[in-house]
Amino acid sequence: MAETVGDIGEFGLIRRIADLLDRHGIRSERVTLGIGDDTASFLPRPGYEVLVTCDTLVEGRHYLSAYITPFDLGSRAMTVNISDIGAMGGRPTYALISLGLKAQMPVHDIDEMYRGFLAELNPFNAAVIGGNLTKSGNGMFIDITLMGEVEQGKGVRRSGAKPGAAVLVTGYPGQSAAGLQLLLHEPDNSKLLDHPLVRVYNRPSHRAQLGEAFAGTGFATAMIDTSDGFLGDLGHICEESKVGAELFEEKIPMNEVLRQTAGVLGKDPYDFFLGESDDYELVVTCRPEHVAFLRSVAAGCGAVPVTEVGRITAARGITLRLTGGEQRPLKASSWDHFRANKDQK
Amino acid sequence: MAETVGDIGEFGLIRRIADLLDRHGIRSERVTLGIGDDTASFLPRPGYEVLVTCDTLVEGRHYLSAYITPFDLGSRAMTVNISDIGAMGGRPTYALISLGLKAQMPVHDIDEMYRGFLAELNPFNAAVIGGNLTKSGNGMFIDITLMGEVEQGKGVRRSGAKPGAAVLVTGYPGQSAAGLQLLLHEPDNSKLLDHPLVRVYNRPSHRAQLGEAFAGTGFATAMIDTSDGFLGDLGHICEESKVGAELFEEKIPMNEVLRQTAGVLGKDPYDFFLGESDDYELVVTCRPEHVAFLRSVAAGCGAVPVTEVGRITAARGITLRLTGGEQRPLKASSWDHFRANKDQK
Repeated sequence: MAETVGDIGEFGLIRRIADLLDRHGIRSERVTLGIGDDTASFLPRPGYEVLVTCDTLVEGRHYLSAYITPFDLGSRAMTVNISDIGAMGGRPTYALISLGLKAQMPVHDIDEMYRGFLAELNPFNAAVIGGNLTKSGNGMFIDITLMGEVEQGKGVRRSGAKPGAAVLVTGYPGQSAAGLQLLLHEPDNSKLLDHPLVRVYNRPSHRAQLGEAFAGTGFATAMIDTSDGFLGDLGHICEESKVGAELFEEKIPMNEVLRQTAGVLGKDPYDFFLGESDDYELVVTCRPEHVAFLRSVAAGCGAVPVTEVGRITAARGITLRLTGGEQRPLKASSWDHFRANKDQK
Repeated sequence: MAETVGDIGEFGLIRRIADLLDRHGIRSERVTLGIGDDTASFLPRPGYEVLVTCDTLVEGRHYLSAYITPFDLGSRAMTVNISDIGAMGGRPTYALISLGLKAQMPVHDIDEMYRGFLAELNPFNAAVIGGNLTKSGNGMFIDITLMGEVEQGKGVRRSGAKPGAAVLVTGYPGQSAAGLQLLLHEPDNSKLLDHPLVRVYNRPSHRAQLGEAFAGTGFATAMIDTSDGFLGDLGHICEESKVGAELFEEKIPMNEVLRQTAGVLGKDPYDFFLGESDDYELVVTCRPEHVAFLRSVAAGCGAVPVTEVGRITAARGITLRLTGGEQRPLKASSWDHFRANKDQK
């Protein structure tokens, strides 16, 4: 029988994790104290602000354990946090990982989860410097605190969007929501795990390198990641910047697989784009004359498309200009974990 | 009926918490971005290391919800983390609070929990700068990441104990464990909530100011808080410092209420002192000629007693010298949350 968390105990598990991190993780020269004391400590880089964010995944709420491997789960939990650091224009540096575990979990699954964490952290030379292990009642949880750094004054906030600015979006928001709907539609179809949209749902990517590059240009005036869905997050920018926005239907990025899948599910593909979806793309505003430069920067960062989908307006509210010219008001909505009618996450 | 978390939703709750923090929390001048963006950010103090720790309380595991008020729960969760910063000789600066909540929880309880957090943070001019709210399945959890700062190179680690050093302990470790045993002994006796040991269990104090003062003298060679019990934590110092220790039975601090309560419970009061107990006292080592100075520093920090209970030895292992002269080996044990036979926490 596979060795379980209960078999090796908390301190055995801590040693095992520390050993795995030693072998496969990054050793950062600015970390003055890692795992194994009352706290970790590091020497911050002069001239840089420290960024810090935390995000939690709860079993049965944020992921379906039957449909995701421990490696992908670790990768996903870290990606969510890396995306937030990237959306400020920063670079991830140090992670603390707090796990609520069930005693009967195989130790091998914990190893795999940590490999997933490291798969995302190592490309940034970012290190796991602490955490906490505890037994959880029903269902496990992963709570990650991720720190990062950004040159002093260079962080890109939600509050800097100005009327007339272009609204850009990376990738194809909505893919993750469509992938989740596919899983919920046919919960017993294991072949779905290879579907490209289910893969996006189970192992979302982030655009943190791109976020850092955008911030480096000095041209990105507001930035956010799409963790609450495109419309929800554009809504956050509008609210914090005290502006509105107009979107152009014919410019909304839509790939064929998303369009076809929406058809299969009997849904409007634009609803997937606009609505709640865990894609971790970026929404960025900049002056219209800087769009071409930001797109060329993105082209240098990889194959992710950057699409200009609309304009910031002085008038509040977000509207969609249909291809025929008609204008339709859109209501920004966001994930809300507590309201009974939005309980699917 | 009382308004619940489900009634006002995630975003309503975030606004309410942000408002409460605005009114009752600290506004730190080095925080460049607080709650309300993808990350928080701060400008670290030049010449200081950043300390960071996290600790989780899970309902039913780390606290008994029927026996603790939301205010005390908030205070307790923050104290656990403040104690870790203090045990490094640092000062708390910024907290991120991640909550797993049940939709039916009264909003008023969340307010009270935040008042409990702030009651502990405000004396340090420390601020809540971020966090996360999520719905948890069965049982709530509180995961706090607390940052702090310590002058570069002045942090006191577990690894600095040298043979011949004096072993000091603050307060009366074991009180919390005795309080918990009282609760478990008579779960339906609500009068117990006023018992001094039950109060220690439900609202433990920390010695962070004292830890910072000890570190400031430069004489504390190793330091740890007693979150794993006195013997467990002295064991951590011995392990990291590659030394042993000898304790003197007649020097072990024991107050009358703990002695009497142990009698009522049919237990040895020294077992409470040595064993697993959530007291968050400090264990400190220093050269014997510095004991008096550290005690005078402690006297300046308040009424907590500091007792010299033993010596660090070159020989590994921890022994207890009984009043009659006999020497008995002690086995360091610690909380272990996953092993079935240590499931009471």
